[in-house]
Amino acid sequence: MGEQRARVLVVAGTHGNERNGPWLLEHWRAHPGSLATAGLDLDLVIGNPEAHTRNRRYLDRDLNRSFDPTLLADASRCEREVVRARQLLAAHGPEGQQPCVAVLDLHSTTSAMGNSLVVYGRRPEDLALAAGIQHRLGLPVYLHEADQAQTGFLVERWPCGLVVEVGPVPQGVIQQRICRQTQLALEAALAVLAQAAQGVLRLPPRLLVHRHLGSLDLPRCADGTPLACLDGRRQHRDWWPLRSGDPLFCRADGEVLPYTAPPERAHGPVWPVFVNEAAYGEKGIALSLTQRELWPVQHGWLEALQALMGAESAG
Amino acid sequence: MGEQRARVLVVAGTHGNERNGPWLLEHWRAHPGSLATAGLDLDLVIGNPEAHTRNRRYLDRDLNRSFDPTLLADASRCEREVVRARQLLAAHGPEGQQPCVAVLDLHSTTSAMGNSLVVYGRRPEDLALAAGIQHRLGLPVYLHEADQAQTGFLVERWPCGLVVEVGPVPQGVIQQRICRQTQLALEAALAVLAQAAQGVLRLPPRLLVHRHLGSLDLPRCADGTPLACLDGRRQHRDWWPLRSGDPLFCRADGEVLPYTAPPERAHGPVWPVFVNEAAYGEKGIALSLTQRELWPVQHGWLEALQALMGAESAG
Repeated sequence: MGEQRARVLVVAGTHGNERNGPWLLEHWRAHPGSLATAGLDLDLVIGNPEAHTRNRRYLDRDLNRSFDPTLLADASRCEREVVRARQLLAAHGPEGQQPCVAVLDLHSTTSAMGNSLVVYGRRPEDLALAAGIQHRLGLPVYLHEADQAQTGFLVERWPCGLVVEVGPVPQGVIQQRICRQTQLALEAALAVLAQAAQGVLRLPPRLLVHRHLGSLDLPRCADGTPLACLDGRRQHRDWWPLRSGDPLFCRADGEVLPYTAPPERAHGPVWPVFVNEAAYGEKGIALSLTQRELWPVQHGWLEALQALMGAESAG
Repeated sequence: MGEQRARVLVVAGTHGNERNGPWLLEHWRAHPGSLATAGLDLDLVIGNPEAHTRNRRYLDRDLNRSFDPTLLADASRCEREVVRARQLLAAHGPEGQQPCVAVLDLHSTTSAMGNSLVVYGRRPEDLALAAGIQHRLGLPVYLHEADQAQTGFLVERWPCGLVVEVGPVPQGVIQQRICRQTQLALEAALAVLAQAAQGVLRLPPRLLVHRHLGSLDLPRCADGTPLACLDGRRQHRDWWPLRSGDPLFCRADGEVLPYTAPPERAHGPVWPVFVNEAAYGEKGIALSLTQRELWPVQHGWLEALQALMGAESAG
């Protein structure tokens, strides 16, 4: 072990109308034995308490798009979520008062994502953590990268971190199954981080990722009104292949609008995620498209995560 | 037919984050042939346009609890939904500028209500309409009555009216299946009203109702935090029988809290509705309980509805 034990930040309620993680988190705070922490020191934090109190996703702007360094450094910006992002970093950031080296951000979605992980970019520490969790629970991994329209995610400001994303569940609702899945994923993540800290983590030979390609919006009128909704056959079909010509949208008169793949993707399927997520309508996202890829797990990922967590073998 | 053709009001978006009805309604407005009106004259109206624009259930107070006559008559009350309720009555009410004799109010829910009807009280016209729709589509009917904690529903201010309630669908989301169910129920209701106007309506011998008994809240701490969530085995089990001793709630530590029937109901089941509806958390309702009853359809119901709709045979 290193001189100082690596702390891990666990955030729930980054979006105030996602209720399952915060409800669990308050329970874990009140009953410390109720979460299997694998011996790690944790900070358990509600991401956006004011939005949580009002049961709204956010007040001024999406907190999970507010961790852009340029935005945070701009003293003229004082939206409540920007202020909150600065607070979280000052208190729990890697250079904060109580520094955390890794963060697990607990989300839920109205999409049928099941129990899943979202990783932002290709940091070796994140990929090691995702591979370790996938090895334990088989969770699908959505690798979000290279999308200029969606930036400033919370976990990007810590040296290691990922999102646990569980659904489908409506906004504002607590469901026992969603809670159970959330706790399972978090405990697996903590077990992986603890093994990394002890220098005993073993990773599987391959990591299955769903690599972000881009997003599609609904067809819309000039005034923004949707001309069509998602075709019923795509509802709750996150992670299922979508091929050119498959039904994708449907007009109110029943006319089906099929998916048309761009020429460079005409022959293989894509895999949709965040299908018909309630909060993404305002972002102009009806679904995101990914490419399913099997990546060899690199030894450098393991080394990077163990070094970060302070394992002696990596010191 | 009477001297003046009976107009029917169709409202969608009484709650601004229920998106399916309003999306359909805008389509019907733009394409008048796309809704089977059965020859009736309709007013198609968005209930709460400002809340709809903001994708929020309401702004100041629930519009569908704002049609209490005492509240509406109180000139000192000027919440936006109270003002809107007065506007709707002035424009489309039974004594309004363009009088409507009946109203159909299109809602959606996060509960697994399926395609269903809600009737408020035992007005013969409403029961005739519900029986006619149930005869066509078999939809379950929730009869809401005698609950002092929930009053001021929109449809109560028209001589006849009911709610079409379709779910499960998250708030803020349009789903094709929900739209199809909504349109089916509405078209059946219009067909029944049109037959009543023509004096040719026939009703089935019996109406199956789920009569409101009361509502249960989650167990809560003193500060209002839920001590338990709905047991996963009750999720999506609207309309299923619940017996004393059945699992009902579940604490975060997994402890199951069974349903305990009051002594007078110890022997038969109750039938829950609006199970874990997102918007009812703030109302302190985790689910409502009903009694399933098979009522003989009374001839007076038919006569009342036909008279209201202006049928000559009833004149």
